[in-house]
Amino acid sequence: MSARDNVNRRVVLATRPRGVPTPQDFRLDQTAVPAPNEGQVLLRTLYLSLDPYMRNLMDEAGTSYAPPVPVGAPIVGGTVSRVVASRHPQFRDGDLVLGNAGWQDYALSDGKDLIPLGEMARPSLALSGLGMTAFTAYVGLLDIGQPKPGETVVVAAATGAVGAVVGQIAKLKGARVVGIAGGADKCRYAVEELGFDACLDRRDPQLAEHLAAACPNGIDVYFENVGGAVFDAVLPLLNNGARVPVCGVIAHYNEDDLPAGPDRLPKTVTTLLQKRIRMEGFIILDHYGNRFDDFRRDMSEWIASGRVKLREDVVDGLENAPDAFIGLLEGRNFGKVVVRLTDA
Amino acid sequence: MSARDNVNRRVVLATRPRGVPTPQDFRLDQTAVPAPNEGQVLLRTLYLSLDPYMRNLMDEAGTSYAPPVPVGAPIVGGTVSRVVASRHPQFRDGDLVLGNAGWQDYALSDGKDLIPLGEMARPSLALSGLGMTAFTAYVGLLDIGQPKPGETVVVAAATGAVGAVVGQIAKLKGARVVGIAGGADKCRYAVEELGFDACLDRRDPQLAEHLAAACPNGIDVYFENVGGAVFDAVLPLLNNGARVPVCGVIAHYNEDDLPAGPDRLPKTVTTLLQKRIRMEGFIILDHYGNRFDDFRRDMSEWIASGRVKLREDVVDGLENAPDAFIGLLEGRNFGKVVVRLTDA
Repeated sequence: MSARDNVNRRVVLATRPRGVPTPQDFRLDQTAVPAPNEGQVLLRTLYLSLDPYMRNLMDEAGTSYAPPVPVGAPIVGGTVSRVVASRHPQFRDGDLVLGNAGWQDYALSDGKDLIPLGEMARPSLALSGLGMTAFTAYVGLLDIGQPKPGETVVVAAATGAVGAVVGQIAKLKGARVVGIAGGADKCRYAVEELGFDACLDRRDPQLAEHLAAACPNGIDVYFENVGGAVFDAVLPLLNNGARVPVCGVIAHYNEDDLPAGPDRLPKTVTTLLQKRIRMEGFIILDHYGNRFDDFRRDMSEWIASGRVKLREDVVDGLENAPDAFIGLLEGRNFGKVVVRLTDA
Repeated sequence: MSARDNVNRRVVLATRPRGVPTPQDFRLDQTAVPAPNEGQVLLRTLYLSLDPYMRNLMDEAGTSYAPPVPVGAPIVGGTVSRVVASRHPQFRDGDLVLGNAGWQDYALSDGKDLIPLGEMARPSLALSGLGMTAFTAYVGLLDIGQPKPGETVVVAAATGAVGAVVGQIAKLKGARVVGIAGGADKCRYAVEELGFDACLDRRDPQLAEHLAAACPNGIDVYFENVGGAVFDAVLPLLNNGARVPVCGVIAHYNEDDLPAGPDRLPKTVTTLLQKRIRMEGFIILDHYGNRFDDFRRDMSEWIASGRVKLREDVVDGLENAPDAFIGLLEGRNFGKVVVRLTDA
């Protein structure tokens, strides 16, 4: 075992955040590295994925698809790990696996939640372009959004882990793609590097007017992954028969109560009716069984051929995960956020 | 021609309503009965359908699917009419037809929007159980709601033209059906006559608690045809994978501006996401081409066998249409509202 001094560093939930998390809501602690029982493996975390859904799991209520993180326990999270001690017949020391070791150096697993990765030149890809976030983009866009050639697709957080892949797949499918992102650098990247047709700054005070100008034929698919003010600019531009896959509403994850008015729900529902719009939420966990193989096949090809480009925002050191996570909720990241714990 | 004194009485839009329409927004006037040109028929209106969508057409903006009614013009509306003078090769004097003659005694048509009805013992059925409102129930429930045996379906305005049919078809498909209606009489009717499993008074101050008790397994399909407070009671009870066909939001048709807060949109969208809910608006005009024949076949059978019961709220006299329409928007009707202009 390669555990230095037998220490397992963990970032645990110190207190449940009220609204936006602060560094004090997290605590770095240490425990002994656990030993695997028969049928278990010990995992060393190489890369940890940071994702907005984690904010929901910090609330006492948890979500309908996952229980809350207990106070004092490590935050949950998807990881690329190496098996460092196996007492499981299907895994050997040195195997690279996709798992859910959470925000810590080491974890035990009974193997049921592990996906063998083989050797990868760039293991973090299993968390980004070939992992959950890109799979979220793939399923939400293709299965719910269903863009047709010539249609207009709008995606917010356009350079984020999900949005960048949504936009690039939509371009592959022949759609006009308009992104919304935080700041001129990100917008330039979306257009020049990712090939979007246009990209608008979400802080633009004339966002609604500029979005209308960028979408002269209206909007057929709006990939909702932020919520908030962007939706208000999008709603009047939606075409008859538009589709709105709801992947996330990051702008609202920190809200405790119903926000102040006016109440935008009636106008939204009236618009859904008059324009025959489908708005549909999805949770990517539901789709591994029937779509993950398709995704891996298509995406591997698109990445290899350079048709889909990936940008990772790599943060070094588990101790920096809380700050990186807070930044992610604020849109400070530029690309998919992964924390590198070790290259071992 | 049977026109008495050659007079065509019409109810025209006097002024565009602000909020809830008042009797002063309508005006009964008279013109001469028009004479058909070659290729036209003159129609005598027997029955006029009153429907909530008409409120939207009184606004200057109209809707995405129909232009506004001009001030001074007759209100639009579906009708059962008799051809009283035909200069059209496909129609003969005396033919009974489904059309769109609007709120008036007589109208001309070039025949393109007419559906021949043959003789019917109860011609108003073409506007209720075999007409647009029941078709709306059929498409919204079966094609979008897709209830499975044992699932729970909730429908508001449960004794209204659409709601009563939604609930009865859902029962036919093996679902548990819970209605919401205005007052004890309507609720009793929904349970005792229509066969709903339960029905709650929408003015019940404990609606949320009582709805939860009536839906012990949650809600799988919510047929949205009212909007407003009912939705707040429904939202927390929706199950994973629930479907919400949006047929109408009558509670909001009279609203000019965004209503006061709190803003219920973020919580709604978050719920759609966490519970993978599909919310989808539809406009029945889109579905005549591919589903109307199925509907007529199924519904004729269900009505003939007594498995679907229809209740019409028949108002006598064109001059009473404005008051009946205002009552419809307020939920004063009990069943499908049709205005009988003549039995001729």
